[in-house]
Order: sequence, then structure tokens, then C-alpha cells
Amino acid sequence: MDRIPILQMGKFLLVTIQVDLYDRLALNLETDLAQMVYKTGARGVLIDISALSIVDSFMGRIIGNIGTMSKIMDAETVLVGMQPAVAITLVELGLELKGVSTALNVEKGMLLLRNKIDSFSETDIEEQDDSSAE
Amino acid sequence: MDRIPILQMGKFLLVTIQVDLYDRLALNLETDLAQMVYKTGARGVLIDISALSIVDSFMGRIIGNIGTMSKIMDAETVLVGMQPAVAITLVELGLELKGVSTALNVEKGMLLLRNKIDSFSETDIEEQDDSSAE
Repeated sequence: MDRIPILQMGKFLLVTIQVDLYDRLALNLETDLAQMVYKTGARGVLIDISALSIVDSFMGRIIGNIGTMSKIMDAETVLVGMQPAVAITLVELGLELKGVSTALNVEKGMLLLRNKIDSFSETDIEEQDDSSAE
Repeated sequence: MDRIPILQMGKFLLVTIQVDLYDRLALNLETDLAQMVYKTGARGVLIDISALSIVDSFMGRIIGNIGTMSKIMDAETVLVGMQPAVAITLVELGLELKGVSTALNVEKGMLLLRNKIDSFSETDIEEQDDSSAE
């Protein structure tokens, strides 16, 4: 396998990382995600890492990169399903994951993304006003 | 890795198969899914196989098992993201995947599940009637 599938769900993209990322896989994921955000106009990226029991500094850096990249393309990134041991490792490694929010599971992550998008996007608010005026 | 993560999204469960299933992984997936359906009361199971370029008879049988098992527990199964080569292989292998519906991608799969559940579930219809009467 040299690609991690990216699933589109409405305005969001969902990525489930189930295997350790090696160089090419990580590079492909970054490229694919950037292209998918561009192509679909997605407003949020959900990264599920519930299958990972270990995260190293490379993986942490890749997740950070994805967060920064998505931010530039006007999409929020939320990391979900983090196991306690992974959280401890991230702190010990001193990785901040700037620009990446976290949530306990996919459902909470989606809720968080919706709130973020609603509070930032003026067009969404205008759309809501239009529909309530009808 | 000896477990494939199962993500809950509202009434549905989402499984992304990214690696070839071997015995224990398949067995764990069947058990985990049955338990998740029981625990969450999920009405639908979405299995994404967009990362797979090859499907063998073992994998086909496991997907069929999951479909039958979910049906018994009152949940519909939809297989999404099938690559053309995989469809051809399934036909050549003579695998019917009884009780499993298919859709092109996750979004269409969710729509299909919603329609299936709405048309079968009387309680849902009653709830809709109640809310429209208010």
C-alpha cells in the first residue's frame, strides 16, 4: 500500500491512519490531501489515529505539516481518537501540533469542525439568514 | 496492527479496510463490528475498500459474513469505493456478497443507508410524524 484513502463527507475530509507512516506514504498523504482540499473545497480535515498505539516525531511532524497546509488552504484540521499513551508521548517529545485541534472521537471532531466553520465563515451565516427569512 | 478501527458517525459505523485481511485481523473485525452494532445500536455499516486494488475469495467471504451478521442484528451493510478491477475480480470469483449493497463512495453510501433505514423503520416514520405535527 502506498496511499492512505481520503474519504469525503460533505464539507469534510476523513483520513484514518492505520499503519506507521514511512517517507513515501507520508509524502503521498500530504500531496493527496492538499489536492483533495483544492478539488472539493473542503472546509475541514479529520485525522483519525485511534488505530495507532505509538506516534514518533516523524509522524508528529507530518500531522503538523498537514495542519499548517490545510490552514493555508482555509481548512481546519482536527485530530481524533488519540490513545492516552500517544498523548503522553507527544508531550514527552515536545511536539505542539500547532494549528491542529483535537477531539476524543470522530463525532466530537465533526461537531468541533462545524462550530469552527460556523463561527468563522460569514457566507455560512448569510446562508442561514436567507433560509430563516424564507 | 491487529485491529481495524471502527468509527461511529451517528447511526452508522464506518470501517476503512486499507490492508489485506489475514485470519486474526478478519476475525477481530467481525467480533468488533458485532459488538459495536450491539453497543451503539447502529443501523448501518459502511465498509470502504477504496484502498484495495485486489480482493481475494477470503476477503470476499469476510465481507459477506459481516453483511449477514449485521442483517441479523438489524443493520444494513454498504460496501463503498470499489475499484473497477475489484468488481471484475468479484464477478470472476463468483462471489455474490449476499445482503451487502454497494455504492460508489462514502457520501452515496450514507445516502443509500439513510433511504434504506427510512423506508424500513416504522419508528423513524412515527418520529417524523410527531415532529411535523408539533
